[in-house]
Amino acid sequence: MRSLYHHPLCPFSRKVRLVLAEKKLEFDEHVERPWECRPEFAALNPAAEVPVLVEEGGTALADSTAICEYLDEAFREPPLLPAEPMARAEVRRLVGWFDAKFHHEVTRGLLGEKVIKRLSQSRAEPDSRAIRAAFSAIHEHLDYIGWLTERHSFLAGSSLSMADIAAAAQLSCIDYIGDVPWDRHHGAKDWYARVKSRPSFRALLADHLPGVPPPRHYADLDF
Amino acid sequence: MRSLYHHPLCPFSRKVRLVLAEKKLEFDEHVERPWECRPEFAALNPAAEVPVLVEEGGTALADSTAICEYLDEAFREPPLLPAEPMARAEVRRLVGWFDAKFHHEVTRGLLGEKVIKRLSQSRAEPDSRAIRAAFSAIHEHLDYIGWLTERHSFLAGSSLSMADIAAAAQLSCIDYIGDVPWDRHHGAKDWYARVKSRPSFRALLADHLPGVPPPRHYADLDF
Repeated sequence: MRSLYHHPLCPFSRKVRLVLAEKKLEFDEHVERPWECRPEFAALNPAAEVPVLVEEGGTALADSTAICEYLDEAFREPPLLPAEPMARAEVRRLVGWFDAKFHHEVTRGLLGEKVIKRLSQSRAEPDSRAIRAAFSAIHEHLDYIGWLTERHSFLAGSSLSMADIAAAAQLSCIDYIGDVPWDRHHGAKDWYARVKSRPSFRALLADHLPGVPPPRHYADLDF
Repeated sequence: MRSLYHHPLCPFSRKVRLVLAEKKLEFDEHVERPWECRPEFAALNPAAEVPVLVEEGGTALADSTAICEYLDEAFREPPLLPAEPMARAEVRRLVGWFDAKFHHEVTRGLLGEKVIKRLSQSRAEPDSRAIRAAFSAIHEHLDYIGWLTERHSFLAGSSLSMADIAAAAQLSCIDYIGDVPWDRHHGAKDWYARVKSRPSFRALLADHLPGVPPPRHYADLDF
């Protein structure tokens, strides 16, 4: 059986979980706390980061983009990248936007400072300046989602793509800690409601980390 | 004619320049200083980051991974990703390693703190702790390159791939400021000598930024 090493509050793990679920691929789950630096885990991925997908046959794949591209190539239905090269480039540009820019400007400042530092028993205090910067930066990203979805139902076109999955993976982590200002961003909220109501999202909405309970609206499809 | 907006000391721009040169695709160059935030440039890429490739026909592509994947799909020879899905995943894992991990742990601390802050007239002083951390972290990465190339001539196999290009793009920026401890890492040095001697590298070795001259060994193939 295929196995996924992941952490419930890792957005890159969530990206892979969503792709596996969209493609209806079954897998065993192993929750990994990468900050524990288990030697057995580092043997699977020298970067010692989640997610890691171990395919039947035992090959370990690491790096969420490498895993998602692999899954889209090896298991074609439903395709999560369009067929035409320039359209694929636009989806991948948006994946890069959320994986790198959103993660750097928002996710690290909110989830990283407020939750992961505590979970990993880091000796560093949460950086209040980083938290404030992230609370400020999230608005521009939600506006951008609203702007994109004025043009199409999904971020890069009329159907769900890897771009929506990358964006929803980051946002769902921030929503788990109740920090998305949905009420000020109706376009982004409508888009997230569409993505959140897909069957592929169910496992994410059932996540419940001991000591870090999600707010009540987190699993509510009518939030 | 195809146009590339890039900066000579941006490793992600260098990655795209190398791919274009490996595929023998001609292009007009525009040197962009992204920290100037030109509105005309932000209109091409809302992230206001280099590189941006404007294809004949006028479509602007952004995000170096999106651009490189596009170029490998649209212009097949020579292929820079292998044919088999798991082998492609391994190349992409290494691309992620150098684009994210190496860039975060090394490039930002050396190039970012020592040079880009000055070029962009940032009011923040170079962070000496970040510089020391990067000087320390580079050894592990060079050891990893040495370990990988004990197995094959190139990072992910017997021929040059996107993994070598991503790694060489980062390292060539650090080499431009003379900060790669080649003498302590013979395996990595041998690999870099092989990549550096390719015709696709020539334009990078001719880079000369006013006020930031490279050390003498930078363009030397027998460094």
